[in-house]
Amino acid sequence: MTDDRVAAQFAFLNEADRLKSVLRATTLCDGSRPENSGEHSWHLALYALTLADHAGPDVDINRVIRMLLLHDLVEIDVGDVPIHSQNGTAHASSETVQAEQRAADRIFGLLPPDLAQQFRALWDEFEAAETPDARFAKSLDRVQPVMANLQSGGGTWITYDVTFDQLESRVGTKVERGAPHLWAWVRAKVRPFFG
Amino acid sequence: MTDDRVAAQFAFLNEADRLKSVLRATTLCDGSRPENSGEHSWHLALYALTLADHAGPDVDINRVIRMLLLHDLVEIDVGDVPIHSQNGTAHASSETVQAEQRAADRIFGLLPPDLAQQFRALWDEFEAAETPDARFAKSLDRVQPVMANLQSGGGTWITYDVTFDQLESRVGTKVERGAPHLWAWVRAKVRPFFG
Repeated sequence: MTDDRVAAQFAFLNEADRLKSVLRATTLCDGSRPENSGEHSWHLALYALTLADHAGPDVDINRVIRMLLLHDLVEIDVGDVPIHSQNGTAHASSETVQAEQRAADRIFGLLPPDLAQQFRALWDEFEAAETPDARFAKSLDRVQPVMANLQSGGGTWITYDVTFDQLESRVGTKVERGAPHLWAWVRAKVRPFFG
Repeated sequence: MTDDRVAAQFAFLNEADRLKSVLRATTLCDGSRPENSGEHSWHLALYALTLADHAGPDVDINRVIRMLLLHDLVEIDVGDVPIHSQNGTAHASSETVQAEQRAADRIFGLLPPDLAQQFRALWDEFEAAETPDARFAKSLDRVQPVMANLQSGGGTWITYDVTFDQLESRVGTKVERGAPHLWAWVRAKVRPFFG
């Protein structure tokens, strides 16, 4: 273990601290303040640990947890892009995607090369949402704000004037891909809110 | 998967949200505000992922990450007990330990029984700090606030009037047990602060 290696590990960990100052559109469950992307990432990793039995048999929960710990780091440079903002179009715009790629280059580039490659590969896999691990991770990332909105009295559904059909298409279909039973349960809880 | 089981999983995950409102004595690295125990837990899990090569060969990093995701949940009931408070004695007082046991009973008790047992066993193992996994997890829990204090200009070392010898005995010896090379590196960074 060289001192240079340890210095690079801490350069990354110190930079990561800034994710705690990136605010999301969603609030805490009690509605007291916006959630930040650091604590959101913790909550999602806990979702993965707790809801592991909703994943298919080909899902490796340890890899899901690693993806979720890393998935929002690019927001240090790009900020959070709310799923319902700009009528649901901002999240996957090519502008956002390119900015996140540059952020990933910079932030993972702080690490020693072997770790940079390993973390970047996990983040790329999460973004692509094609493997069973990434699909389950994405399902959790979509379902957690739904639970927060339910408890805080509407949250971003009110902010962005979201209909139940929009929630189904922007969120439900994605949750369903990775965790079908989970969406069935959450959907039944959510339905009454939209009248 | 019964609906009762999903309801219990979400009862736990919704309760866990409250950890984001538990404030620690340590601030963010930029000194802007106190860190909360939710984002602290995320940062520690990222520490484990990033500093895995500082662990001994008998350490399972996936188990370390799971312990760190769960380790502070009892603070929802008990609050954070700063390591340097009450001249370094409050942290392991029998009063604190008993209150944390009651909190673990309540909070993990929200889960379906199999998960309650599994999470409680991980938390008990972390608290006992006897296995290689728990010792490494504890080392990270001790070293992260040191890095925050270094960057914020002293933080809790100033609040609690901590000397370098006190830091060595309260923090250094614990970090060294799980990650000896890590402490050697951090110690050299910290030493100049104390003059």
